[in-house]
Amino acid sequence: MAGTNTRKAAVLGGPAVVLVAPQLGENIGAAARAMLNCGLVDMRIVAPRDGWPNPRAASAASGADAVIARARLYATTEEAVADLAHVFATSARSRYMVKPVATPRHAAAAMRSFEAAGERCGILFGPERMGLTNEQIVLADTVITVPLNPAFSSLNLAQAVLLVGYEWYQAGDATPELVISNRGRYRGPAPKELLFNFFEHFEKALDEADFFRVDHKRPAMVRNLRNLFQRCLPTEQEVRTLHGIVTALTGRRKDGRARERGEE
Amino acid sequence: MAGTNTRKAAVLGGPAVVLVAPQLGENIGAAARAMLNCGLVDMRIVAPRDGWPNPRAASAASGADAVIARARLYATTEEAVADLAHVFATSARSRYMVKPVATPRHAAAAMRSFEAAGERCGILFGPERMGLTNEQIVLADTVITVPLNPAFSSLNLAQAVLLVGYEWYQAGDATPELVISNRGRYRGPAPKELLFNFFEHFEKALDEADFFRVDHKRPAMVRNLRNLFQRCLPTEQEVRTLHGIVTALTGRRKDGRARERGEE
Repeated sequence: MAGTNTRKAAVLGGPAVVLVAPQLGENIGAAARAMLNCGLVDMRIVAPRDGWPNPRAASAASGADAVIARARLYATTEEAVADLAHVFATSARSRYMVKPVATPRHAAAAMRSFEAAGERCGILFGPERMGLTNEQIVLADTVITVPLNPAFSSLNLAQAVLLVGYEWYQAGDATPELVISNRGRYRGPAPKELLFNFFEHFEKALDEADFFRVDHKRPAMVRNLRNLFQRCLPTEQEVRTLHGIVTALTGRRKDGRARERGEE
Repeated sequence: MAGTNTRKAAVLGGPAVVLVAPQLGENIGAAARAMLNCGLVDMRIVAPRDGWPNPRAASAASGADAVIARARLYATTEEAVADLAHVFATSARSRYMVKPVATPRHAAAAMRSFEAAGERCGILFGPERMGLTNEQIVLADTVITVPLNPAFSSLNLAQAVLLVGYEWYQAGDATPELVISNRGRYRGPAPKELLFNFFEHFEKALDEADFFRVDHKRPAMVRNLRNLFQRCLPTEQEVRTLHGIVTALTGRRKDGRARERGEE
C-alpha cells in the first residue's frame, strides 16, 4: 500500500551510513543491526576488503538483512557521497586540520535540520583498525568525535555506528523522559481523598493498638507516616490493598489476643 | 601516589553494572570494554551460566582486563545490589508493573545527582536471550528503556551497556558541542581587516581581468563573492594563501597573454 510505504519512509529515512574500506563481514552485519536499531537503512559500502556481497555480513545482520540487501557498493568514497549535501566523518583522533568537530548529539540535531530542509546527509565510518585517512576526512564538512573515557576511547565499527545512530534517533524521538509504566493501564495516583481516608483508617488502627505511646509525639509521627505513604503515589487499587492489609492485621491481632485469653 | 588514585576514582567511579545471569563469556568481555569506554569500572556478575572466572570474558575484554579482574561474583541479584541506594533495571519491554520508566538520558542525570549526594547507584542488565524477569525488575526503583526503532529494538548485552554508559558519561562531560579542530593550534578566524584587504586585492584582480563585464551587476556580484569567502571563516594563514593564489593566477594570466603576444 502506498500509504504504508510513505509512513515507513518517514519513520526510517535518515542519513546514509558510509562504511569506508570495512574489513570483516561480521562487522558490516553488526553495523547493519545497529543502523536498523536506530531506524537507519541507507548503507553504502566503499571498497570492502573481502568483496561484496559477503555472506558473513548477511548472517551477522540477523534480522537486519534488509539493510544488507539494500546496501550499495562504491569504488571510492567520492562516489559514495556524490549525491549528498552534508557529509560528516567519524574520528576518534583530532587532526591537524581546520574543520568543525561536533559531538554526536550536536551532529544529530544538525542532520535533523538539514533533512527537514530536504538536504541529504551521510556519515563516514573508517576501517576497523586505522579509521579514516586525512584524504577521506577532507571529504567531510564536519568531524564527529564521541566524547568517551580518554584513556580508553576506541570503539568497534558497530558500536560507533550505534552511538551516532542512537543520537540521530533521539533527536527525532518524542519518548517522555520519565513515565509510570503499566502497559497503558496506569491511570495515575489515587485522588488524595482516597489517600486521606486510608490515613484515617490506618491511624485509628494504630491508636487502638497503642502504637503512639507518647501523646505529644503523635503529630510528628503521623506526619512522617503520611509522608512515607504519599511518596509511593499509590493507585486506587493499591489504596484498596492497603485498607485490606490494615483490616487483616488488626483482625489477626484481635484474634491473637482472643486466643491468648483462651477465647475461641 | 595517593593524589593520583583520588583523581582516578573521581574520573572513573560511576554506577555499578550488574550483569544478571549472563550466558556467553564473550558478551561479558564486550560489556567490560563498553564499560571502560564510558569510565565505568564496577562490574558485578550474578550467577553466570558458564561459571567464573571465564577465560573467554578476559580475552574478549582486550584492553579492559582490569574491569574483568575487578569484577565481583554474586549468587543472587539481591546480594549484588545490597550496598546500593538506587537500582535501575534495563528492559526493552514494558511490564504490567506500576514503576517509573526513564530514558537512559534521564536516568543518567538522576544517577549523577544521586552520586553527587553520596548515594551509590547500580544498573541491572538481564541475560542475553530473555532479559530480566519480573522478580528481578521488582528489585529496581526505576526501569530504563532505550528509545529505539520499535520495529527492531533488541540490543545485545554490550550494546545495551554501551548506550546506558554513554549517557552516563555524557551527563558528566564538558566537551563543547562544536569546536574547530587543529590539535590546539587553531587561533580562530583572521581579523576582519585582513579579510577586507584580501577582498580589495581579489576584486582589483577581477576588475583588471574584466570579470564583471556589466558595471551595474558588479555590486551584487561583489557581495556574493565576499559572502562566499566570509562563510569559510579563513584563518590568517589561509588569507595569506588566498592572496598568493590571486597573485599567482594574475601573474600566470599576464605571462600567458605575454606568451600569446609572442613576448618572452
